[in-house]
This record gives sequence, structure tokens and C-alpha cells, in this order.
Amino acid sequence: MQRILSAQLPHHVGETVTIAGWVHRRRLLKSVAFLIVRDATGLIQVVAGDDKRRAAIEALTEETVVAVTGTVTANSAAPSGVEITDPEVRTLGAPAVPPPFDLFRPALSASLPTQLDHASVALRHRTRATALKAAAAAAAGFRATLDAAGFTEIFTPKIVASATESGANVFGLDYFGTRAYLAQSPQFYKQLMVGVFERVYEVGPVFRAEPHDTARHLAQYTSLDVELGFVTDHRDVMAVLRDVVAGMVAAVSERLPAVPVPGVPAVIPAVHFVDALAIAGAPPDEPDLAPAHERSLGEWALREHGSEFLFVTGYPMRKRPFYTHPEPGRPTHSNSFDLLFRGLEMVTGGQRLHEYDDYVAALGGDLTGVESYVEAFRHGMPPHGGFAIGLERFVARLLGVANVREVTAFPRDLHRLTP
Amino acid sequence: MQRILSAQLPHHVGETVTIAGWVHRRRLLKSVAFLIVRDATGLIQVVAGDDKRRAAIEALTEETVVAVTGTVTANSAAPSGVEITDPEVRTLGAPAVPPPFDLFRPALSASLPTQLDHASVALRHRTRATALKAAAAAAAGFRATLDAAGFTEIFTPKIVASATESGANVFGLDYFGTRAYLAQSPQFYKQLMVGVFERVYEVGPVFRAEPHDTARHLAQYTSLDVELGFVTDHRDVMAVLRDVVAGMVAAVSERLPAVPVPGVPAVIPAVHFVDALAIAGAPPDEPDLAPAHERSLGEWALREHGSEFLFVTGYPMRKRPFYTHPEPGRPTHSNSFDLLFRGLEMVTGGQRLHEYDDYVAALGGDLTGVESYVEAFRHGMPPHGGFAIGLERFVARLLGVANVREVTAFPRDLHRLTP
Repeated sequence: MQRILSAQLPHHVGETVTIAGWVHRRRLLKSVAFLIVRDATGLIQVVAGDDKRRAAIEALTEETVVAVTGTVTANSAAPSGVEITDPEVRTLGAPAVPPPFDLFRPALSASLPTQLDHASVALRHRTRATALKAAAAAAAGFRATLDAAGFTEIFTPKIVASATESGANVFGLDYFGTRAYLAQSPQFYKQLMVGVFERVYEVGPVFRAEPHDTARHLAQYTSLDVELGFVTDHRDVMAVLRDVVAGMVAAVSERLPAVPVPGVPAVIPAVHFVDALAIAGAPPDEPDLAPAHERSLGEWALREHGSEFLFVTGYPMRKRPFYTHPEPGRPTHSNSFDLLFRGLEMVTGGQRLHEYDDYVAALGGDLTGVESYVEAFRHGMPPHGGFAIGLERFVARLLGVANVREVTAFPRDLHRLTP
Repeated sequence: MQRILSAQLPHHVGETVTIAGWVHRRRLLKSVAFLIVRDATGLIQVVAGDDKRRAAIEALTEETVVAVTGTVTANSAAPSGVEITDPEVRTLGAPAVPPPFDLFRPALSASLPTQLDHASVALRHRTRATALKAAAAAAAGFRATLDAAGFTEIFTPKIVASATESGANVFGLDYFGTRAYLAQSPQFYKQLMVGVFERVYEVGPVFRAEPHDTARHLAQYTSLDVELGFVTDHRDVMAVLRDVVAGMVAAVSERLPAVPVPGVPAVIPAVHFVDALAIAGAPPDEPDLAPAHERSLGEWALREHGSEFLFVTGYPMRKRPFYTHPEPGRPTHSNSFDLLFRGLEMVTGGQRLHEYDDYVAALGGDLTGVESYVEAFRHGMPPHGGFAIGLERFVARLLGVANVREVTAFPRDLHRLTP
């Protein structure tokens, strides 16, 4: 018999059907026994009145996988307005052992480390599963927006001959007898691919040997990378980023209507770094924005512009990577930006250098390790720029979750290599 | 002035516009000079009649990035029926140095190693760029098919504590002082995620320290992974794979109408391994199919079924990984399959074990390194199965390309770690 998903059950009232899923909860009352079965689309209430059927439900352990054949009966008190009556329950595998924590309660009571130790069970909880569904939706919205705007998806190497962003926090490995590294970003490759497709994006893992244990850092995270050519300056890149964020938020909202999402202004307000310092009440010689500055800028944007998003542009060159394009007329600053979301940096981007001589100068003439990257700029590269969004950070901020590990299936950090 | 892409030019006849792109070719005739500019959407012919404009074109190097402002003029002899006349040419960066090989000829004359050494230039050639566009389209078709079928995209760790498939061909790395490995596949994780979402997929890099230099193997490739629960057996998985392949082929055809694509039968023919050996003329005790057997099976499928695709099912258990589900009633064989495309194995998959005790038995009681994976099967897993498609192999086979390196942007192999 064809299995029916819980979401489809209301269309089958009066029919005998088979449903299947996990034993989510049992409630054994005096007169009746309830079995709540969880499947990919929701919960199904199964009701047993007679002794034999009750005994079958009593014998089950939570998380055992079962198939239940019975009659779909309307009941306005049931979760979806219908329930299964006269059930025949069949176990689809060996009975499960009791889960290390209850999955049926509104919140997981186990500590985060315990959840992560038992990730394959914890992720079945609604809060954790919803976060991963939001990540999938955000990635889909990212791609859909860029596909529609003429971007081409690329797949680039994650094993590289030299550190991408800096020599720090990079994982080394033995590559057939040669020293190699895990890519910290697809930065160089996406720039080179602008020379091929003009507009490119990549969704993939990046690796940082992050030695600090914080709520925001992971040793592996999913980077949503974009790069586009023939820009006038960083503002063209910011316009694409605005549309991408709007597309990501819309996709989450569409797939998960219960998740409250922020409005994304048609034009996200932007302030120059110099003005941002003044707004945040920071000394004018600060080289970067501290978390407290970002928070007060977030409050300012909400108050003055009604926006949960704020661009800060023109960061000092000395705090940005060597490929950053300087600001015309103010070479101590750069054509770069951060996008703050609710007072936290969520995206970094900017215009890049595109001339060979500028790269040689920026590197002080030392091209060691980046020869093939810099060489490409001798073969004609248009003015270009791009950005990278950390998927886990985006989802955590969107859902108001404090720790990125809560929105990551199997996080990797200083202390965690399993499961 | 807003830049116009070459594909839009026919809509602007009579207007003064600005186009931009790479100097693809120059043709300097006695009476007139032609400049062919290449952008993301095609080629644009620019015509210079007078001496000053001709001199500007003569001074350009191939691959220099230029903007050209001029009048869009109908000319049925021009590539897209229009050309730019009275052009003002402006260089958008420093002039390029001459490319290491001609990009404007129908085929790249440089050897494959030379192309790979200069990948950022070689990939601009139409043949190489088309292959990467086909890969992007195939990945999009993969995701679209699965999104529509209720699958959830997942992102799993690429740094793992133990080898996934076997101890061989795995890259080791130092992970904060602990020995770790690059994931050879997301096999364990996608199975665990069936416990969360029932149906999952992942598009991501996998790593094999492949010690042989062949036309089919890369040290990193893009794996398109699928896993689904509540299957009866491997045939439910094969039905999903058929739809996925059809979706991938359709997406390539839609984005690249000039690429000839195979028909995908509504039901792909399938033969059991035992029968496949007989068809291929192999001895009945062969444990696996050799490349020559696969080729003759491919010919047989085309001849007997008019299909370029063929499933071979029921491979001997001893040639499949430990998590493979045996064939009921014939435990020496398995509920597994390969999908052959034009006589070459392109996809491997099957039903997996889903009971804890079966895993313990399959591993001979030794769970070392896979404890957290196997432990998950004590918490209720439905009958499930899945498959993995190597994106580069799929594209190479689809385009009739002999070497997967020709369809990979920056391949990694025994000898190649750059660019």
C-alpha cells in the first residue's frame, strides 16, 4: 500500500491508508492510547481503543520507525484535524533504544554539547531541523537570485598550494608528498572566473583553523561566494548583494512561513566608515569597528532608517586584504563594505584590484605562492568585486540563535571532530 | 552609459550604445579594421573605417578588456546580424600580454597540460567554458528535480575523524593536534540525515588521494549525493535516479540548446549482475564488471532497448561497501546498482543496511572509527538507500570528452596542485 505523508492525510478522510515515520510520543490514558508518529511533513495522531492495539503501542520505544495502517478519521482536536483509528502497527526495523533526551518537548533540554554529541538524534527536534531547513532555503534563494541575474555557478579547488587570505588559521595537509592547505575561501578562483563568465558564484565549504572557541566561529562553514565584473565600483556589488539577501530571506519565508523574517529595503542604507565611527561614538582613529560599535550602528539604522540592515563602506585599507581596491581620492580607505544585519557583521565584500601592476605593488613585489593568481591579471580582467556570506551566521542571525553550532548539522571546531 | 550585452544588441539597432568585453580577435584588412569583442553572452563585431579608429584597434592586444561606444548597425554578415560602427574604444585596464595560445580558433591547439597550466586563460575558450556551463546546468537540474520531490539540501563535514569508504586513498591532515582526514564521501552523514528529513541531497567536494594518473580520476571532484528513506528496496532508489538524470539532461539542454543530449527512457532498462556477465560474455564467477564488459553492455542496451542508459543490479556483496544491503534470498549478491551511461559506470548506489545489529555483523563487531555512525542506527532508521553521481564524469560523458580534466575548472591530481 502506498505510504501517505502526514501533510496529505486531510485529503484521505474515510480511507484506509498506511502512514510511516518515527514514534514521536505515546500518551497512555485510561480509556485510550495515543501514538504520535512524526514524518518528514509533520505529526500524525494514531488512536488505539481496544486492548490488543493498546498493547502494541505500549510496547514501542520513542524513535522506533513504524508503519501504521488504519482509517483516516476527522477529529478537530487532532494536530492536523485528522487522526488514524483502528491502527495496525508494524515496526520497520529493530526497536530503537530510548533517545538520550526527549524530542517531543517544545525545546531540547539537553546542553548544546550533549546535543552535538548525539547530533543524529538532536537534529530530529523541530527547532534544530527547522534551522537546517532554513539554511537549505537560504542557499536555494541565493542561487535562484543569481541564476536569474546571469551568474554561473562554479566549483573550485578546496586543496590549494598556498594560504588564500593569510598564513594564519590554515589547515595543512600532505598532498602526494607536497605541503598543501585547505582553502580558506574561493577568493582567487572566483576572481579568475570573472575572466571567463563575468558573473560567478559558488556554494561550498571553507576551512579556518580557528584557534578560538566562540559562538561565531567554525573550523568549516558554508561560504556563499559571489564575484562580478564590469562594475563601476563597490556600489554595483552592494546592489547585487541587496538582491541576494532579499532572495534568501524570501526563500526562507516561502518554505517556512512560520519563521518571522526582516524586511529588506529596496536600497539598504549605507554609511562611510568615517561617519560610522562618529555615529558609534568611537574615536576617529579607530582602524576597525568593534562589536559594540556594530551593535550601536545596528540600533542607529533601525531608528533612523527603519532598516535591520546597514552597509558600512570605506574601511581602512590596512584592515582589508591585499586585493582590495582603494577608494579614489582617499587611498587610506577602500572601496569595500561590510553588511551589518541586526548589529552584527554578516557579509564582507568590495571592489578588487584588477590590474597586474597594482597587485605587484600591493604585494610589495613578492608574489611567492600567488604567482598563478597574479599572473592571470596580465591577461585582461575587468573592474570587478564581490562578497561572501557565511551561511551558518546568516541563518543564526535570522533565527535569533546565539551559537552557529545550533544551526549546523555536524559542526567542526577546536574541540569537535565527531560525529 | 549603461553597458549592453552582445545578446541584447539586436534590440538596439540605430542607437548609440556602450558594449564591453575582451578583445577576442582583430582582423585588419586594407579598407577596414574589424574588432571582435567577446562578452558573457557572445561576440560583437566592431568596424573601424577611418585611420584614427583603425589605429586604436591596431594598438590592442588580444584579451585586453575594452569598452566600446558606437552605433548599432544592422549587417547580415555580422555574427549576430548587427555590428558597432563609428566606435570609440576605451581600455578598462592595462593592456593584456598576448595569451599563451589563440582563443579565437574553433579548438584550442595547446596540449591539455598547457591548458591546465594556464587555466584562467584556457577556460575562456568556448569549448572549455561550455563544459563548465554544462556542469552548472547539470547541478541546477539535479537540485531542481530533488527539491520538487521533497528532498532537503544538506551541508556536511569534509574533515572527518576516520576514512569513510576505506582506509585507502585518503588525505590525512592535522586537526588541532589530532589526526583527521578529508571526507571521501558524505555517505555516513547523508544516511544519518535520512533520520531527520527522510530525503536529502548534497552537492559538494569529495577527496580521493588517487595514486593513479588516469583520464577518469581526480583528487577532488564534485559529488552529487542523494539518500532517501522508506524505500521498499533499491528499485525505489533507481526510480529517483532516473528522474534526477532526466532533470540534469533537460537542464543542460535548456541552457545549452546546441549540446546534443541523450533521451532518458521513462524506465531505464535493468539487468541483474548475473545476467550482465552472460550478456558481456564474461565467466559467471567474475566478481565485477571490467571496462570491456561495461562497453559491451552499453552496446547491448542501445541495440536491445534503444537506451544509452542501463542499470546493472545485484553486484556481489564482496565488491560493495559494508553498509550495502544484501539481496533477499541471494545473500552473496546485493540490493545495489550501477548506472551505465554509454557503456561507462557513471553512478553507484543501492539500498543500505538500516538495523544496528546488521551493521555490527557487517563490521565483524569492530566499530572502531565508526562508533557514532553505527550508534545512530540504534535510534530508529527506516529502510533507505541512495546514490552518488560524479559531476565531472557525467559532464565529460555527456559532452563526449575523453578526460575529466577538460570539464574541470582547476583539476587536482597526482601531479597538479596549481593553479
